[in-house]
Amino acid sequence: MLAAWVDGLPANSLGLADRGLHYGDGLFETIAANEGRARFLGAHLARLTKGCAALSIAMPDRDTLRFEIARAAQLAPQVLIKLIVTRGLALERGYGYTGGEAATRIVMGYAWPGEQGAAPAPARTALAVLRCGRPLLAGVKHLNRLEQVLARQEARQRGLDEVILAADEGHVTGGSMTNVFALAQGCLVTPPVAHCAVAGVLRGQLLAAASRLGMATAERRLAPDELLAADALWLTNVRVGVWPVTRFAGRDYPAHECTQRLQRAVLETAMETADA
Amino acid sequence: MLAAWVDGLPANSLGLADRGLHYGDGLFETIAANEGRARFLGAHLARLTKGCAALSIAMPDRDTLRFEIARAAQLAPQVLIKLIVTRGLALERGYGYTGGEAATRIVMGYAWPGEQGAAPAPARTALAVLRCGRPLLAGVKHLNRLEQVLARQEARQRGLDEVILAADEGHVTGGSMTNVFALAQGCLVTPPVAHCAVAGVLRGQLLAAASRLGMATAERRLAPDELLAADALWLTNVRVGVWPVTRFAGRDYPAHECTQRLQRAVLETAMETADA
Repeated sequence: MLAAWVDGLPANSLGLADRGLHYGDGLFETIAANEGRARFLGAHLARLTKGCAALSIAMPDRDTLRFEIARAAQLAPQVLIKLIVTRGLALERGYGYTGGEAATRIVMGYAWPGEQGAAPAPARTALAVLRCGRPLLAGVKHLNRLEQVLARQEARQRGLDEVILAADEGHVTGGSMTNVFALAQGCLVTPPVAHCAVAGVLRGQLLAAASRLGMATAERRLAPDELLAADALWLTNVRVGVWPVTRFAGRDYPAHECTQRLQRAVLETAMETADA
Repeated sequence: MLAAWVDGLPANSLGLADRGLHYGDGLFETIAANEGRARFLGAHLARLTKGCAALSIAMPDRDTLRFEIARAAQLAPQVLIKLIVTRGLALERGYGYTGGEAATRIVMGYAWPGEQGAAPAPARTALAVLRCGRPLLAGVKHLNRLEQVLARQEARQRGLDEVILAADEGHVTGGSMTNVFALAQGCLVTPPVAHCAVAGVLRGQLLAAASRLGMATAERRLAPDELLAADALWLTNVRVGVWPVTRFAGRDYPAHECTQRLQRAVLETAMETADA
Protein backbone atom coordinates (compact mmCIF):
# COMPACT_ATOMS: atom_id res chain seq x y z
CA MET A 1 0.00 0.00 0.00
CA LEU A 2 1.44 3.40 -1.00
CA ALA A 3 -0.66 5.53 1.34
CA ALA A 4 -4.06 5.62 2.99
CA TRP A 5 -6.50 8.10 4.46
CA VAL A 6 -9.42 7.59 6.84
CA ASP A 7 -12.08 10.30 6.74
CA GLY A 8 -9.61 12.47 4.86
CA LEU A 9 -6.66 12.17 7.22
CA PRO A 10 -3.50 10.10 6.67
CA ALA A 11 -3.95 6.86 8.60
CA ASN A 12 -2.82 3.28 8.75
CA SER A 13 -5.47 1.92 11.07
CA LEU A 14 -9.23 1.85 11.68
CA GLY A 15 -11.21 2.05 14.91
CA LEU A 16 -12.01 -1.41 16.32
CA ALA A 17 -15.69 -0.53 16.70
CA ASP A 18 -16.13 0.04 12.97
CA ARG A 19 -19.01 -1.99 11.57
CA GLY A 20 -17.01 -2.64 8.42
CA LEU A 21 -14.82 -4.97 10.46
CA HIS A 22 -17.57 -6.55 12.58
CA TYR A 23 -20.09 -7.34 9.85
CA GLY A 24 -18.60 -6.34 6.50
CA ASP A 25 -21.22 -3.60 6.80
CA GLY A 26 -20.02 -1.41 3.96
CA LEU A 27 -19.10 -1.09 0.30
CA PHE A 28 -15.99 -0.70 -1.80
CA GLU A 29 -14.78 0.45 -5.19
CA THR A 30 -11.52 -0.41 -6.90
CA ILE A 31 -10.57 2.49 -9.16
CA ALA A 32 -7.76 2.50 -11.70
CA ALA A 33 -5.89 5.79 -12.08
CA ASN A 34 -3.54 6.65 -14.91
CA GLU A 35 -1.30 9.73 -15.13
CA GLY A 36 -3.01 11.15 -12.07
CA ARG A 37 -6.55 10.71 -13.30
CA ALA A 38 -9.12 8.23 -12.01
CA ARG A 39 -10.84 6.22 -14.72
CA PHE A 40 -14.62 5.72 -14.96
CA LEU A 41 -15.05 7.85 -11.86
CA GLY A 42 -18.66 8.74 -12.65
CA ALA A 43 -19.59 5.07 -12.98
CA HIS A 44 -17.80 4.18 -9.72
CA LEU A 45 -19.56 6.93 -7.78
CA ALA A 46 -22.91 6.01 -9.33
CA ARG A 47 -22.53 2.39 -8.22
CA LEU A 48 -21.42 3.47 -4.76
CA THR A 49 -24.51 5.68 -4.50
CA LYS A 50 -26.77 2.75 -5.40
CA GLY A 51 -24.97 0.49 -2.94
CA CYS A 52 -25.35 3.03 -0.13
CA ALA A 53 -29.06 3.23 -0.91
CA ALA A 54 -29.38 -0.58 -0.89
CA LEU A 55 -27.77 -0.79 2.57
CA SER A 56 -29.18 2.50 3.94
CA ILE A 57 -25.69 3.86 4.49
CA ALA A 58 -25.32 7.64 4.29
CA MET A 59 -23.54 8.34 0.97
CA PRO A 60 -20.46 10.51 1.65
CA ASP A 61 -20.30 13.88 -0.05
CA ARG A 62 -19.35 13.31 -3.68
CA ASP A 63 -17.07 16.32 -3.97
CA THR A 64 -15.18 15.16 -0.92
CA LEU A 65 -14.80 11.70 -2.45
CA ARG A 66 -13.65 13.19 -5.75
CA PHE A 67 -11.02 15.24 -3.94
CA GLU A 68 -9.77 12.31 -1.93
CA ILE A 69 -9.64 10.00 -4.95
CA ALA A 70 -7.82 12.64 -7.00
CA ARG A 71 -5.27 12.98 -4.21
CA ALA A 72 -4.65 9.22 -4.16
CA ALA A 73 -4.35 9.23 -7.96
CA GLN A 74 -1.25 11.43 -7.59
CA LEU A 75 0.67 8.80 -5.63
CA ALA A 76 2.29 7.28 -8.74
CA PRO A 77 1.88 7.32 -12.54
CA GLN A 78 -0.41 4.31 -12.24
CA VAL A 79 -2.34 3.68 -9.03
CA LEU A 80 -5.05 1.26 -8.06
CA ILE A 81 -7.26 3.08 -5.56
CA LYS A 82 -9.43 1.15 -3.14
CA LEU A 83 -12.25 3.15 -1.63
CA ILE A 84 -14.11 1.58 1.30
CA VAL A 85 -17.22 3.19 2.77
CA THR A 86 -18.50 1.53 5.94
CA ARG A 87 -21.59 2.32 8.00
CA GLY A 88 -19.13 3.72 10.53
CA LEU A 89 -18.35 3.21 14.20
CA ALA A 90 -21.01 1.19 15.98
CA LEU A 91 -23.23 3.28 18.25
CA GLU A 92 -24.47 0.16 20.01
CA ARG A 93 -23.45 -3.50 20.28
CA GLY A 94 -24.98 -6.02 17.88
CA TYR A 95 -26.13 -6.34 14.29
CA GLY A 96 -28.70 -3.55 14.52
CA TYR A 97 -27.83 -0.01 13.57
CA THR A 98 -29.45 3.19 14.79
CA GLY A 99 -29.36 5.18 11.58
CA GLY A 100 -27.30 7.84 13.36
CA GLU A 101 -23.94 6.29 12.45
CA ALA A 102 -21.50 8.45 10.47
CA ALA A 103 -20.09 6.57 7.46
CA THR A 104 -16.33 5.95 7.45
CA ARG A 105 -14.39 6.76 4.26
CA ILE A 106 -11.18 4.82 3.67
CA VAL A 107 -9.04 5.63 0.62
CA MET A 108 -6.03 3.43 -0.10
CA GLY A 109 -3.56 3.67 -2.98
CA TYR A 110 -1.72 0.60 -4.30
CA ALA A 111 1.15 0.33 -6.76
CA TRP A 112 -0.10 -0.92 -10.11
CA PRO A 113 1.76 -1.57 -13.37
CA GLY A 114 -1.19 -0.35 -15.43
CA GLU A 115 -1.10 -1.13 -19.15
CA GLN A 116 2.50 0.13 -19.49
CA GLY A 117 3.81 -3.38 -19.81
CA ALA A 118 2.39 -6.01 -22.13
CA ALA A 119 -1.32 -6.78 -22.19
CA PRO A 120 -2.17 -9.47 -19.62
CA ALA A 121 -1.52 -13.01 -20.82
CA PRO A 122 -4.79 -14.72 -21.80
CA ALA A 123 -6.50 -16.41 -18.88
CA ARG A 124 -6.58 -20.13 -18.22
CA THR A 125 -9.93 -20.83 -16.56
CA ALA A 126 -12.30 -23.61 -15.53
CA LEU A 127 -15.70 -23.97 -13.94
CA ALA A 128 -15.35 -23.69 -10.17
CA VAL A 129 -16.33 -26.57 -7.94
CA LEU A 130 -17.54 -23.95 -5.50
CA ARG A 131 -21.13 -22.90 -6.08
CA CYS A 132 -21.91 -19.27 -5.51
CA GLY A 133 -25.04 -17.26 -5.10
CA ARG A 134 -26.41 -14.72 -2.73
CA PRO A 135 -29.35 -13.22 -4.60
CA LEU A 136 -30.26 -10.78 -1.83
CA LEU A 137 -27.05 -8.83 -2.42
CA ALA A 138 -26.55 -9.49 -6.15
CA GLY A 139 -24.71 -6.67 -7.88
CA VAL A 140 -23.93 -4.72 -4.69
CA LYS A 141 -20.19 -4.22 -4.15
CA HIS A 142 -20.36 -4.91 -0.43
CA LEU A 143 -17.60 -6.02 1.94
CA ASN A 144 -18.94 -9.58 2.47
CA ARG A 145 -16.55 -11.35 0.14
CA LEU A 146 -15.82 -14.77 1.61
CA GLU A 147 -17.15 -16.59 -1.48
CA GLN A 148 -14.64 -14.67 -3.59
CA VAL A 149 -11.82 -15.49 -1.17
CA LEU A 150 -12.67 -19.19 -1.37
CA ALA A 151 -13.00 -19.04 -5.16
CA ARG A 152 -9.61 -17.33 -5.60
CA GLN A 153 -8.13 -20.07 -3.46
CA GLU A 154 -9.69 -22.71 -5.70
CA ALA A 155 -8.16 -21.00 -8.76
CA ARG A 156 -4.76 -20.88 -7.07
CA GLN A 157 -4.89 -24.51 -5.99
CA ARG A 158 -5.88 -25.64 -9.48
CA GLY A 159 -3.17 -23.54 -11.17
CA LEU A 160 -5.73 -21.41 -13.01
CA ASP A 161 -5.81 -17.67 -13.62
CA GLU A 162 -9.51 -17.52 -12.83
CA VAL A 163 -12.46 -19.77 -12.05
CA ILE A 164 -15.93 -19.22 -13.48
CA LEU A 165 -18.67 -19.66 -10.93
CA ALA A 166 -22.19 -20.99 -11.34
CA ALA A 167 -25.11 -20.69 -8.94
CA ASP A 168 -26.88 -23.74 -7.52
CA GLU A 169 -29.47 -23.30 -10.25
CA GLY A 170 -26.70 -23.78 -12.81
CA HIS A 171 -26.44 -20.34 -14.41
CA VAL A 172 -23.06 -18.65 -14.70
CA THR A 173 -22.53 -15.75 -12.29
CA GLY A 174 -19.02 -14.67 -13.35
CA GLY A 175 -15.41 -15.12 -12.32
CA SER A 176 -14.11 -14.86 -8.76
CA MET A 177 -12.94 -11.29 -9.41
CA THR A 178 -14.30 -10.63 -12.91
CA ASN A 179 -17.47 -10.41 -14.97
CA VAL A 180 -17.66 -12.83 -17.89
CA PHE A 181 -18.61 -12.25 -21.54
CA ALA A 182 -19.20 -14.80 -24.30
CA LEU A 183 -19.30 -14.15 -28.05
CA ALA A 184 -22.15 -16.36 -29.25
CA GLN A 185 -23.32 -16.16 -32.88
CA GLY A 186 -21.85 -12.69 -33.15
CA CYS A 187 -23.61 -11.43 -30.01
CA LEU A 188 -21.68 -10.32 -26.90
CA VAL A 189 -23.54 -11.98 -24.02
CA THR A 190 -23.09 -11.48 -20.26
CA PRO A 191 -25.24 -12.54 -17.29
CA PRO A 192 -27.73 -9.96 -15.99
CA VAL A 193 -26.75 -8.00 -12.87
CA ALA A 194 -29.25 -10.04 -10.84
CA HIS A 195 -27.03 -13.08 -11.46
CA CYS A 196 -23.73 -11.27 -10.83
CA ALA A 197 -21.71 -11.10 -7.65
CA VAL A 198 -20.86 -7.53 -8.67
CA ALA A 199 -22.27 -5.10 -11.22
CA GLY A 200 -18.79 -4.45 -12.60
CA VAL A 201 -17.90 -0.98 -13.79
CA LEU A 202 -15.90 -2.41 -16.69
CA ARG A 203 -18.80 -4.75 -17.45
CA GLY A 204 -21.02 -1.71 -18.09
CA GLN A 205 -18.30 0.04 -20.06
CA LEU A 206 -17.72 -2.99 -22.27
CA LEU A 207 -21.42 -3.35 -23.06
CA ALA A 208 -21.52 0.32 -24.07
CA ALA A 209 -18.28 0.11 -26.07
CA ALA A 210 -19.47 -2.96 -27.98
CA SER A 211 -22.68 -1.15 -28.91
CA ARG A 212 -20.67 1.82 -30.17
CA LEU A 213 -18.69 -0.61 -32.35
CA GLY A 214 -21.95 -1.94 -33.82
CA MET A 215 -21.84 -5.31 -32.04
CA ALA A 216 -25.04 -6.92 -30.81
CA THR A 217 -25.09 -7.33 -27.01
CA ALA A 218 -27.35 -9.18 -24.59
CA GLU A 219 -27.69 -9.52 -20.83
CA ARG A 220 -29.21 -12.91 -20.25
CA ARG A 221 -28.88 -16.18 -18.37
CA LEU A 222 -25.78 -18.10 -19.47
CA ALA A 223 -25.21 -21.82 -18.97
CA PRO A 224 -21.66 -23.21 -18.70
CA ASP A 225 -22.27 -25.13 -21.95
CA GLU A 226 -22.82 -21.84 -23.76
CA LEU A 227 -19.39 -20.70 -22.64
CA LEU A 228 -17.95 -23.90 -24.13
CA ALA A 229 -19.80 -23.28 -27.41
CA ALA A 230 -18.81 -19.59 -27.66
CA ASP A 231 -16.42 -18.21 -30.30
CA ALA A 232 -14.56 -16.20 -27.66
CA LEU A 233 -14.67 -15.48 -23.93
CA TRP A 234 -13.53 -12.35 -22.08
CA LEU A 235 -13.27 -11.50 -18.41
CA THR A 236 -13.45 -7.91 -17.15
CA ASN A 237 -12.57 -5.79 -14.19
CA VAL A 238 -11.00 -2.35 -13.96
CA ARG A 239 -7.57 -3.77 -13.15
CA VAL A 240 -7.21 -6.36 -15.95
CA GLY A 241 -9.47 -4.51 -18.39
CA VAL A 242 -10.80 -6.79 -21.16
CA TRP A 243 -9.01 -10.07 -20.50
CA PRO A 244 -9.19 -12.76 -23.17
CA VAL A 245 -9.69 -16.37 -22.10
CA THR A 246 -7.40 -18.93 -23.69
CA ARG A 247 -8.79 -21.99 -21.94
CA PHE A 248 -12.04 -22.91 -20.21
CA ALA A 249 -13.02 -26.33 -18.92
CA GLY A 250 -10.56 -28.18 -21.16
CA ARG A 251 -11.31 -26.27 -24.38
CA ASP A 252 -8.79 -23.92 -26.00
CA TYR A 253 -9.91 -20.58 -27.41
CA PRO A 254 -7.76 -19.06 -30.16
CA ALA A 255 -6.93 -15.35 -30.00
CA HIS A 256 -9.91 -13.38 -31.37
CA GLU A 257 -9.77 -10.34 -33.64
CA CYS A 258 -12.24 -8.44 -31.45
CA THR A 259 -10.04 -8.43 -28.34
CA GLN A 260 -7.86 -5.44 -29.18
CA ARG A 261 -10.77 -3.46 -30.62
CA LEU A 262 -12.79 -3.97 -27.45
CA GLN A 263 -9.80 -3.13 -25.23
CA ARG A 264 -9.23 0.13 -27.09
CA ALA A 265 -12.91 1.05 -27.22
CA VAL A 266 -13.32 0.63 -23.48
CA LEU A 267 -10.41 2.92 -22.64
CA GLU A 268 -11.73 5.66 -24.96
CA THR A 269 -14.34 6.68 -22.39
CA ALA A 270 -12.24 6.10 -19.29
CA MET A 271 -11.76 9.78 -18.60
CA GLU A 272 -15.35 10.93 -18.94
CA THR A 273 -16.26 12.13 -15.50
CA ALA A 274 -19.96 12.80 -15.90
CA ASP A 275 -21.86 10.95 -13.18
CA ALA A 276 -24.23 8.35 -14.53
CA MET B 1 -16.59 -1.07 24.75
CA LEU B 2 -14.77 -1.47 28.06
CA ALA B 3 -11.38 -2.42 26.63
CA ALA B 4 -9.80 -4.19 23.68
CA TRP B 5 -6.64 -6.00 22.74
CA VAL B 6 -5.17 -6.81 19.33
CA ASP B 7 -2.72 -9.72 19.29
CA GLY B 8 -2.53 -9.45 23.04
CA LEU B 9 -1.74 -5.74 23.33
CA PRO B 10 -4.15 -2.99 24.41
CA ALA B 11 -5.45 -1.34 21.26
CA ASN B 12 -8.31 0.64 19.87
CA SER B 13 -7.58 0.25 16.18
CA LEU B 14 -6.73 -2.31 13.52
CA GLY B 15 -4.32 -2.13 10.57
CA LEU B 16 -6.06 -0.98 7.39
CA ALA B 17 -4.60 -3.89 5.42
CA ASP B 18 -6.37 -6.47 7.59
CA ARG B 19 -8.38 -8.92 5.51
CA GLY B 20 -11.10 -8.91 8.16
CA LEU B 21 -11.99 -5.40 7.03
CA HIS B 22 -11.55 -5.91 3.29
CA TYR B 23 -13.46 -9.17 2.87
CA GLY B 24 -14.94 -10.15 6.22
CA ASP B 25 -12.23 -12.82 6.00
CA GLY B 26 -12.43 -14.07 9.55
CA LEU B 27 -14.52 -15.49 12.36
CA PHE B 28 -15.94 -14.34 15.66
CA GLU B 29 -17.26 -15.59 18.96
CA THR B 30 -19.46 -13.75 21.43
CA ILE B 31 -18.71 -15.10 24.90
CA ALA B 32 -20.66 -14.31 28.06
CA ALA B 33 -18.58 -14.01 31.22
CA ASN B 34 -19.98 -14.01 34.74
CA GLU B 35 -18.03 -13.26 37.92
CA GLY B 36 -14.80 -13.30 35.95
CA ARG B 37 -15.38 -16.62 34.24
CA ALA B 38 -16.18 -17.20 30.58
CA ARG B 39 -19.14 -19.47 29.96
CA PHE B 40 -19.14 -22.41 27.53
CA LEU B 41 -15.53 -21.65 26.69
CA GLY B 42 -14.80 -25.15 25.42
CA ALA B 43 -17.73 -25.00 23.01
CA HIS B 44 -16.70 -21.55 21.75
CA LEU B 45 -13.13 -22.65 21.11
CA ALA B 46 -14.30 -25.86 19.45
CA ARG B 47 -16.51 -23.89 17.04
CA LEU B 48 -13.71 -21.42 16.35
CA THR B 49 -11.39 -24.33 15.55
CA LYS B 50 -13.90 -25.74 13.07
CA GLY B 51 -14.41 -22.31 11.51
CA CYS B 52 -10.67 -21.81 11.09
CA ALA B 53 -10.46 -25.20 9.39
CA ALA B 54 -13.37 -24.32 7.07
CA LEU B 55 -11.66 -21.10 5.97
CA SER B 56 -8.06 -22.38 6.17
CA ILE B 57 -7.15 -19.75 8.74
CA ALA B 58 -4.39 -20.67 11.17
CA MET B 59 -6.11 -21.30 14.51
CA PRO B 60 -4.46 -19.15 17.19
CA ASP B 61 -2.86 -20.94 20.11
CA ARG B 62 -5.66 -22.05 22.45
CA ASP B 63 -3.81 -21.29 25.67
CA THR B 64 -3.13 -17.77 24.44
CA LEU B 65 -6.82 -17.34 23.63
CA ARG B 66 -7.82 -18.71 27.03
CA PHE B 67 -5.49 -16.26 28.75
CA GLU B 68 -6.74 -13.29 26.73
CA ILE B 69 -10.40 -14.21 27.24
CA ALA B 70 -9.85 -14.68 30.96
CA ARG B 71 -8.25 -11.23 31.13
CA ALA B 72 -11.25 -9.64 29.39
CA ALA B 73 -13.61 -11.51 31.72
CA GLN B 74 -12.10 -9.52 34.62
CA LEU B 75 -13.24 -6.17 33.24
CA ALA B 76 -16.55 -6.20 35.15
CA PRO B 77 -18.80 -8.63 37.07
CA GLN B 78 -20.62 -9.40 33.83
CA VAL B 79 -18.89 -8.96 30.49
CA LEU B 80 -19.79 -9.84 26.95
CA ILE B 81 -16.54 -10.69 25.18
CA LYS B 82 -16.27 -10.50 21.43
CA LEU B 83 -13.37 -12.43 19.98
CA ILE B 84 -12.55 -11.83 16.32
CA VAL B 85 -9.95 -13.89 14.48
CA THR B 86 -9.11 -12.67 10.98
CA ARG B 87 -6.80 -14.16 8.38
CA GLY B 88 -4.55 -11.22 9.20
CA LEU B 89 -2.82 -8.44 7.30
CA ALA B 90 -2.94 -8.94 3.55
CA LEU B 91 0.38 -10.02 2.06
CA GLU B 92 -0.81 -9.11 -1.44
CA ARG B 93 -3.64 -7.11 -2.98
CA GLY B 94 -6.86 -8.91 -3.95
CA TYR B 95 -9.13 -11.72 -2.78
CA GLY B 96 -6.45 -14.39 -2.93
CA TYR B 97 -4.37 -15.27 0.12
CA THR B 98 -0.90 -16.75 0.19
CA GLY B 99 -1.30 -19.04 3.19
CA GLY B 100 1.56 -17.22 4.89
CA GLU B 101 -0.68 -14.65 6.61
CA ALA B 102 -0.54 -14.46 10.41
CA ALA B 103 -4.03 -14.50 11.93
CA THR B 104 -5.07 -11.39 13.88
CA ARG B 105 -6.65 -11.87 17.34
CA ILE B 106 -8.98 -9.13 18.55
CA VAL B 107 -10.52 -9.39 22.01
CA MET B 108 -13.11 -6.80 23.03
CA GLY B 109 -15.02 -6.54 26.31
CA TYR B 110 -18.49 -4.96 26.47
CA ALA B 111 -20.62 -4.00 29.45
CA TRP B 112 -23.45 -6.47 29.93
CA PRO B 113 -26.20 -6.62 32.55
CA GLY B 114 -26.09 -10.43 32.61
CA GLU B 115 -28.96 -12.17 34.36
CA GLN B 116 -28.70 -9.92 37.43
CA GLY B 117 -31.82 -8.04 36.48
CA ALA B 118 -35.07 -9.68 35.47
CA ALA B 119 -35.19 -12.40 32.82
CA PRO B 120 -35.60 -10.88 29.35
CA ALA B 121 -39.21 -10.02 28.45
CA PRO B 122 -40.65 -12.63 26.07
CA ALA B 123 -39.94 -11.87 22.44
CA ARG B 124 -42.46 -10.52 19.95
CA THR B 125 -41.51 -12.00 16.59
CA ALA B 126 -42.70 -12.48 13.03
CA LEU B 127 -41.54 -14.15 9.85
CA ALA B 128 -39.07 -11.86 8.07
CA VAL B 129 -39.83 -10.56 4.62
CA LEU B 130 -36.11 -10.92 3.94
CA ARG B 131 -35.12 -14.34 2.68
CA CYS B 132 -31.84 -15.68 3.91
CA GLY B 133 -29.57 -18.46 2.89
CA ARG B 134 -25.94 -18.94 2.10
CA PRO B 135 -25.51 -22.68 2.19
CA LEU B 136 -21.79 -22.58 1.42
CA LEU B 137 -21.06 -20.99 4.79
CA ALA B 138 -23.93 -22.48 6.85
CA GLY B 139 -23.05 -22.81 10.50
CA VAL B 140 -19.69 -20.99 10.25
CA LYS B 141 -19.53 -17.91 12.50
CA HIS B 142 -17.78 -15.77 9.88
CA LEU B 143 -17.61 -11.98 9.61
CA ASN B 144 -19.86 -11.70 6.51
CA ARG B 145 -23.01 -10.62 8.32
CA LEU B 146 -24.89 -8.26 6.02
CA GLU B 147 -27.98 -10.48 5.98
CA GLN B 148 -28.13 -10.25 9.77
CA VAL B 149 -27.70 -6.47 9.66
CA LEU B 150 -30.59 -6.20 7.19
CA ALA B 151 -32.73 -8.60 9.23
CA ARG B 152 -32.16 -6.67 12.49
CA GLN B 153 -33.22 -3.54 10.67
CA GLU B 154 -36.41 -5.24 9.53
CA ALA B 155 -37.16 -6.23 13.14
CA ARG B 156 -36.52 -2.67 14.30
CA GLN B 157 -38.69 -1.14 11.61
CA ARG B 158 -41.55 -3.54 12.36
CA GLY B 159 -41.34 -2.96 16.12
CA LEU B 160 -40.41 -6.59 16.80
CA ASP B 161 -37.86 -8.07 19.17
CA GLU B 162 -36.72 -10.57 16.55
CA VAL B 163 -37.57 -11.78 13.06
CA ILE B 164 -37.52 -15.45 12.08
CA LEU B 165 -35.91 -16.05 8.72
CA ALA B 166 -36.69 -18.63 6.08
CA ALA B 167 -34.59 -19.65 3.11
CA ASP B 168 -35.83 -19.36 -0.46
CA GLU B 169 -36.77 -23.02 -0.25
CA GLY B 170 -39.12 -22.16 2.63
CA HIS B 171 -37.43 -23.83 5.59
CA VAL B 172 -36.78 -21.85 8.76
CA THR B 173 -33.13 -20.94 9.33
CA GLY B 174 -33.43 -19.08 12.66
CA GLY B 175 -33.68 -15.56 14.01
CA SER B 176 -31.51 -12.66 12.91
CA MET B 177 -29.27 -13.12 15.97
CA THR B 178 -30.67 -16.32 17.50
CA ASN B 179 -31.32 -19.98 16.88
CA VAL B 180 -34.95 -21.08 17.08
CA PHE B 181 -36.57 -24.01 18.89
CA ALA B 182 -40.17 -25.27 18.69
CA LEU B 183 -41.92 -27.61 21.12
CA ALA B 184 -43.97 -29.87 18.85
CA GLN B 185 -45.85 -32.86 20.31
CA GLY B 186 -43.52 -32.86 23.28
CA CYS B 187 -40.37 -32.84 21.14
CA LEU B 188 -37.90 -29.94 21.15
CA VAL B 189 -37.17 -29.31 17.46
CA THR B 190 -34.56 -27.02 15.88
CA PRO B 191 -33.27 -26.76 12.29
CA PRO B 192 -30.09 -28.72 11.49
CA VAL B 193 -26.82 -26.78 11.40
CA ALA B 194 -26.81 -27.03 7.59
CA HIS B 195 -29.89 -24.76 7.62
CA CYS B 196 -28.58 -22.35 10.26
CA ALA B 197 -26.81 -19.05 9.77
CA VAL B 198 -24.76 -19.97 12.85
CA ALA B 199 -24.18 -23.20 14.78
CA GLY B 200 -25.04 -21.43 18.03
CA VAL B 201 -23.18 -22.38 21.17
CA LEU B 202 -26.34 -22.03 23.24
CA ARG B 203 -28.20 -24.05 20.62
CA GLY B 204 -25.90 -26.99 21.31
CA GLN B 205 -26.12 -26.47 25.07
CA LEU B 206 -29.94 -26.39 24.98
CA LEU B 207 -30.15 -29.60 22.99
CA ALA B 208 -27.87 -31.27 25.53
CA ALA B 209 -29.72 -29.80 28.52
CA ALA B 210 -33.11 -30.92 27.19
CA SER B 211 -31.79 -34.44 26.76
CA ARG B 212 -30.53 -34.43 30.35
CA LEU B 213 -34.05 -33.41 31.44
CA GLY B 214 -35.48 -36.37 29.55
CA MET B 215 -37.07 -34.35 26.74
CA ALA B 216 -37.12 -35.69 23.20
CA THR B 217 -35.12 -33.51 20.80
CA ALA B 218 -34.78 -33.42 17.02
CA GLU B 219 -32.70 -31.50 14.49
CA ARG B 220 -34.79 -31.41 11.33
CA ARG B 221 -36.24 -29.17 8.67
CA LEU B 222 -38.86 -26.80 10.11
CA ALA B 223 -41.54 -24.99 8.11
CA PRO B 224 -42.97 -21.67 9.34
CA ASP B 225 -46.36 -23.40 9.76
CA GLU B 226 -44.81 -25.77 12.27
CA LEU B 227 -43.74 -22.80 14.38
CA LEU B 228 -47.34 -21.59 14.30
CA ALA B 229 -48.59 -25.02 15.39
CA ALA B 230 -46.02 -25.44 18.19
CA ASP B 231 -46.87 -25.44 21.90
CA ALA B 232 -43.98 -23.09 22.63
CA LEU B 233 -41.11 -21.33 20.85
CA TRP B 234 -37.72 -20.32 22.22
CA LEU B 235 -34.85 -18.32 20.78
CA THR B 236 -31.27 -18.77 21.94
CA ASN B 237 -27.94 -17.06 21.98
CA VAL B 238 -25.33 -16.69 24.70
CA ARG B 239 -26.45 -13.16 25.54
CA VAL B 240 -30.21 -13.69 25.91
CA GLY B 241 -29.93 -17.33 26.95
CA VAL B 242 -33.20 -19.24 26.44
CA TRP B 243 -35.63 -16.53 25.35
CA PRO B 244 -39.33 -17.40 25.26
CA VAL B 245 -41.44 -16.17 22.35
CA THR B 246 -44.74 -14.51 23.22
CA ARG B 247 -45.88 -13.75 19.69
CA PHE B 248 -45.07 -15.08 16.22
CA ALA B 249 -46.82 -14.13 12.99
CA GLY B 250 -49.95 -12.94 14.73
CA ARG B 251 -50.32 -15.85 17.17
CA ASP B 252 -49.84 -15.46 20.93
CA TYR B 253 -47.92 -18.07 22.88
CA PRO B 254 -48.71 -18.35 26.63
CA ALA B 255 -45.83 -18.70 29.07
CA HIS B 256 -44.68 -22.34 29.16
CA GLU B 257 -43.71 -24.35 32.20
CA CYS B 258 -40.54 -25.61 30.50
CA THR B 259 -38.97 -22.18 30.07
CA GLN B 260 -37.45 -21.83 33.53
CA ARG B 261 -36.37 -25.45 33.69
CA LEU B 262 -34.54 -25.12 30.38
CA GLN B 263 -32.97 -21.80 31.40
CA ARG B 264 -31.64 -23.32 34.61
CA ALA B 265 -30.47 -26.54 32.96
CA VAL B 266 -28.45 -24.65 30.35
CA LEU B 267 -26.59 -22.58 32.92
CA GLU B 268 -25.67 -25.67 34.94
CA THR B 269 -22.93 -26.57 32.46
CA ALA B 270 -21.81 -23.04 31.65
CA MET B 271 -18.58 -23.39 33.58
CA GLU B 272 -17.39 -26.70 32.23
CA THR B 273 -14.21 -25.85 30.41
CA ALA B 274 -13.42 -29.15 28.76
CA ASP B 275 -12.95 -28.60 25.04
CA ALA B 276 -15.41 -30.45 22.88
